[in-house]
Amino acid sequence: MIRIGVVGATGYTGVELLRLLANRSDVRLEVVTSRERQGTLVNELFPSLRGHIDLEFAAPDSPALGDCDIVFFATPHGVAMETVPELLDRGVRVIDLSADFRLQDIALWERWYKTTHRCPQLVPEAVYGLPEVNREQIGQARLVAAPGCYPTAIQLGYIPLLRAGLVDVSQLIADAKSGVSGAGRKAAIDYLAGEATESIKAYGVTGHRHGPEIEQGLNRHSGQPVNLIFMPHLTPMIRGILATLYAPVKAGTEVTAESLQALYQDSYANEPFVDLLPQGEYPATRNVRGANTCQISVVHRAENNRVVVLSAIDNLVKGASGQAVQIMNIMLGLPETSGLDQVALVP
Amino acid sequence: MIRIGVVGATGYTGVELLRLLANRSDVRLEVVTSRERQGTLVNELFPSLRGHIDLEFAAPDSPALGDCDIVFFATPHGVAMETVPELLDRGVRVIDLSADFRLQDIALWERWYKTTHRCPQLVPEAVYGLPEVNREQIGQARLVAAPGCYPTAIQLGYIPLLRAGLVDVSQLIADAKSGVSGAGRKAAIDYLAGEATESIKAYGVTGHRHGPEIEQGLNRHSGQPVNLIFMPHLTPMIRGILATLYAPVKAGTEVTAESLQALYQDSYANEPFVDLLPQGEYPATRNVRGANTCQISVVHRAENNRVVVLSAIDNLVKGASGQAVQIMNIMLGLPETSGLDQVALVP
Amino acid sequence: MIRIGVVGATGYTGVELLRLLANRSDVRLEVVTSRERQGTLVNELFPSLRGHIDLEFAAPDSPALGDCDIVFFATPHGVAMETVPELLDRGVRVIDLSADFRLQDIALWERWYKTTHRCPQLVPEAVYGLPEVNREQIGQARLVAAPGCYPTAIQLGYIPLLRAGLVDVSQLIADAKSGVSGAGRKAAIDYLAGEATESIKAYGVTGHRHGPEIEQGLNRHSGQPVNLIFMPHLTPMIRGILATLYAPVKAGTEVTAESLQALYQDSYANEPFVDLLPQGEYPATRNVRGANTCQISVVHRAENNRVVVLSAIDNLVKGASGQAVQIMNIMLGLPETSGLDQVALVP
Amino acid sequence: MIRIGVVGATGYTGVELLRLLANRSDVRLEVVTSRERQGTLVNELFPSLRGHIDLEFAAPDSPALGDCDIVFFATPHGVAMETVPELLDRGVRVIDLSADFRLQDIALWERWYKTTHRCPQLVPEAVYGLPEVNREQIGQARLVAAPGCYPTAIQLGYIPLLRAGLVDVSQLIADAKSGVSGAGRKAAIDYLAGEATESIKAYGVTGHRHGPEIEQGLNRHSGQPVNLIFMPHLTPMIRGILATLYAPVKAGTEVTAESLQALYQDSYANEPFVDLLPQGEYPATRNVRGANTCQISVVHRAENNRVVVLSAIDNLVKGASGQAVQIMNIMLGLPETSGLDQVALVP
Repeated sequence: MIRIGVVGATGYTGVELLRLLANRSDVRLEVVTSRERQGTLVNELFPSLRGHIDLEFAAPDSPALGDCDIVFFATPHGVAMETVPELLDRGVRVIDLSADFRLQDIALWERWYKTTHRCPQLVPEAVYGLPEVNREQIGQARLVAAPGCYPTAIQLGYIPLLRAGLVDVSQLIADAKSGVSGAGRKAAIDYLAGEATESIKAYGVTGHRHGPEIEQGLNRHSGQPVNLIFMPHLTPMIRGILATLYAPVKAGTEVTAESLQALYQDSYANEPFVDLLPQGEYPATRNVRGANTCQISVVHRAENNRVVVLSAIDNLVKGASGQAVQIMNIMLGLPETSGLDQVALVP
Repeated sequence: MIRIGVVGATGYTGVELLRLLANRSDVRLEVVTSRERQGTLVNELFPSLRGHIDLEFAAPDSPALGDCDIVFFATPHGVAMETVPELLDRGVRVIDLSADFRLQDIALWERWYKTTHRCPQLVPEAVYGLPEVNREQIGQARLVAAPGCYPTAIQLGYIPLLRAGLVDVSQLIADAKSGVSGAGRKAAIDYLAGEATESIKAYGVTGHRHGPEIEQGLNRHSGQPVNLIFMPHLTPMIRGILATLYAPVKAGTEVTAESLQALYQDSYANEPFVDLLPQGEYPATRNVRGANTCQISVVHRAENNRVVVLSAIDNLVKGASGQAVQIMNIMLGLPETSGLDQVALVP
Repeated sequence: MIRIGVVGATGYTGVELLRLLANRSDVRLEVVTSRERQGTLVNELFPSLRGHIDLEFAAPDSPALGDCDIVFFATPHGVAMETVPELLDRGVRVIDLSADFRLQDIALWERWYKTTHRCPQLVPEAVYGLPEVNREQIGQARLVAAPGCYPTAIQLGYIPLLRAGLVDVSQLIADAKSGVSGAGRKAAIDYLAGEATESIKAYGVTGHRHGPEIEQGLNRHSGQPVNLIFMPHLTPMIRGILATLYAPVKAGTEVTAESLQALYQDSYANEPFVDLLPQGEYPATRNVRGANTCQISVVHRAENNRVVVLSAIDNLVKGASGQAVQIMNIMLGLPETSGLDQVALVP
Repeated sequence: MIRIGVVGATGYTGVELLRLLANRSDVRLEVVTSRERQGTLVNELFPSLRGHIDLEFAAPDSPALGDCDIVFFATPHGVAMETVPELLDRGVRVIDLSADFRLQDIALWERWYKTTHRCPQLVPEAVYGLPEVNREQIGQARLVAAPGCYPTAIQLGYIPLLRAGLVDVSQLIADAKSGVSGAGRKAAIDYLAGEATESIKAYGVTGHRHGPEIEQGLNRHSGQPVNLIFMPHLTPMIRGILATLYAPVKAGTEVTAESLQALYQDSYANEPFVDLLPQGEYPATRNVRGANTCQISVVHRAENNRVVVLSAIDNLVKGASGQAVQIMNIMLGLPETSGLDQVALVP
């Protein structure tokens, strides 16, 4: 039986991981930690887990973590980088849902996260855990950095276009809309129901931490560095990200609705969790709520000669914990879809 | 392989049935019907089912229904009673999610549903499908009437009190709050997002169709006919019912918080889908969202000498389609929890 | 020009007071205080007030308060009782929106608010500011305790019944549903959009601070102490309270739908802010959103021989700041409806 | 006393007009029509208007319309163009909130609205009612076409940039997010609370009727025809539009955050309903809910050398009925802000 640990499971990505891992027969949740809730029953904090998980929260430095096969970090940035080296030394493999190992450029990381990176030596080894791009390396990795939520939706939307070299990468725009669970489960006035419902606003208007991660990913597939405006919006719903992606067709290039559809069809034909919608159908975040699916539409606005891609995920599933489970499945050589066949909750 | 049919799957209980049945390996969805959508791919109407269900909607009189082992009716009232006799004659067993066979008193049914019952001869045979009450009969039944959403939450909350004879049944009040999905997926101004969000109201103020069903159920467990006010409220959320149940302690009877807790503990100790919360914890509908669980708390208001029971379900799961699947499992002799181990979607 | 001060205007009742006072020509907002935001422009914290209010938050002990004609306290409990005596000494009249002066029984207050009352000597003088009950005394008062939100909805709903002696007061139930703004504008996980939307729950299940206030008010109009269960519910909307009130008809008494309607019609005929709906129409909180109106329906459930009253307010307007402005108008001899003619915001 | 009529007041722009006109002392609502609700009390359909409006809905061809000074059309497209000529002949001035007279290019109108224009002769005379652009002509007009909701937010956001010639108009993108009230008050499954809440989606992905109107407006202020992608999104809130506008800085042009701020400051210095936010503050739709304000921020993304403008309105106020009242005030020579000083409803 594969033994699993989760560090920092009191937030939304934590409880979502527990939901996805609770009923599996092929892996066993051994230890769940929380600094603040140590000694509390997990299902007292999250009554939705009653009857599914009977563990208490252990201390963050619980030795049981060292006996796990896989440990997930569902912690704020800055935590994993302190503990990961020791776990790796003990032979544990790590999936970090935080930002600590996502950026290869450590100076860039330190600029955006305003702290010194405590574990730069492991950054080169860390595999960026977007399965649709890095499946092979994930399978071999000791340490995987699970992508951010926005970066997942935006990279999956843009990559086929960039690889095919069809668009002018100097004018990219990713206008993204996220539900409030993206802000996490922390006491803050801005995310009160009285503040964050019945309203929409942009944030990170002059720059957002996910920007460098997205650019790092897009640059890898583009012939030249992209010039991207990434503009996130706080949207009055609990779950979901819709990324509306814009790109001008490159001068001298010709595309049609059909050629774009074929490109995306080819790109994602074998991907279990990327669902290209038929022409004329477009994603809504509700259709992936609770599911590990990224639904994508690609559109040619002929009169503008520009491409629009719509990419929808559940930020807590394909944008975080579901993707982390997908990564785990790959690392362990399990069927990639194990435990991830949930149908979206509609309505 | 057990063959399943669903009649009328374009509504919310229909799509929820499909969600719960989609990934099972022990039963196979053979036919899904819709009068209006005949010929359309099911997953075109419900893109959440893409990759899970590839059927087209068949005609409501599809002969394939007659080859099924079990047929669910997820139709408005008045439909099942027209078709059920023929299916039973062909050896099909039926689970009706509509109201057609819930009331044993046909005159009462006709008064509330304002139509003539077309199949009164089957009413005595129909089993009321509340597993916690009728498990044995469900197992043997050809025709099961799945309970309504409010009746499920309210009966599970009240029954232990009534069976124990602890309360004065002449002063019962069930103040119930339901999400908008209870009104179904039909075009109506009252349930537009612009009308039904950011507001709460009572409806059915002078009487509601679920009243007689609830009373029929409660009377069975009470020594005398109950005098109940059932007051439903339209609540600005998609899913969930919270029933707040009130009852005075019967004169000459003594109860304590502990004795009530013990009573409910005993009553539901072996029920897989009734979750009695520990003293001091109370249900919220979010904690059962998408799950087939009824979470219950029982409280003694000592200074009032009255009992309050809080009972929460997902109206589309334990209040409709999940319960229907539970009924199916019982009818087929499958483990009662098969396909029903989903953890609630929180947040 | 009448000079107005507001102490503690960073919460929801504070900003609502500012909204209602901003455009009046007969009173002038002189000073607005905040301990935490001192020196900040009010309209920087609340951009909805840009162009309407140009003040900065002053210190809570700003001497300008002493020069006001009326000072409102929109503070948590425990603040007003420290400062009010000094202001009264300086000739300022005070309207306290907090709970400090609502209960005449100081021991009871101290039990529920878990602190020592610092100003018991003023409690007897404080007028309970429900205009429909205490209009005369409010007009003469130096110190008015504005009622709580639940107490306003519930008292206005019950009082005609109690005064008429029609119901058995030993079996009262007030099942009340409030939007999240009732919890105030403070950082707390429970009221995050990710926690408090798409769900309903009861709270204060074994007792709530507003209970004693409601009972104090109801007892005054009833021949004997009432036995009331007050059960509040957190409802996923920003504004609004709906109170569903139940009472058995007293033995030996006869009521009809018409007699009840006439009773309420007579009781509120001259009340500008109590709107009795015609028979067959029922309140929804949206219809009073932003307005100082309490909409009421009274229903006789003949088959139960019980009365149900539905009472809806905007918790921040008639339940707090609008009522405070109404009180101010009465104290100052202004038309009672001055500045309170807003039509509810629908949709 | 100025006499006002409203044709077709059963929709959301209709009830919003009534809200804004109800309490004015300088104009009087004489007649309100509805084909379907003729003979019903207006305040029976909209209980929020109880105590404010006592009219019944009159027939759409009520002769009382001909005695009005101003008649508003709050009708679907295709209605006003049938009736307006006769009203103009009788000396009535008309403000049309529908699309009938917004486009000067009749062939374009007929292509998008899929019907023959029945009144092309009046189109050249009709004034496009964006006060910030056409104040003078509005003052003189007999017939004013009130702008659409998206066009208002987007034009106010883009116009200063275009007039100043700072941006490359071949790469404009208006990514707009609207609340559900924009879809109107009509029975349609897509806008049920169970469908349109807790989800976001793009619509009109390959083109939307407001596109030509926006382009007509932008072209007027730009040296050359713009190439614009207008992409609307259905957002799970009742009211509000946020338009996120993108434009590359024109080659050879230099802008800074400060120069942009100054440009917008100058452009809107005298506009009562355009509120340029200070640098570093950004709009949220809640801050204009119920108010006739357009809040705007302008941002230079220096690393991209592109401009982003954020423009927020209440779609039913500045995007429809509030703007119509503003137009009326201008036409009648009243203070432009009469009846429009409502503070936004926050929270």
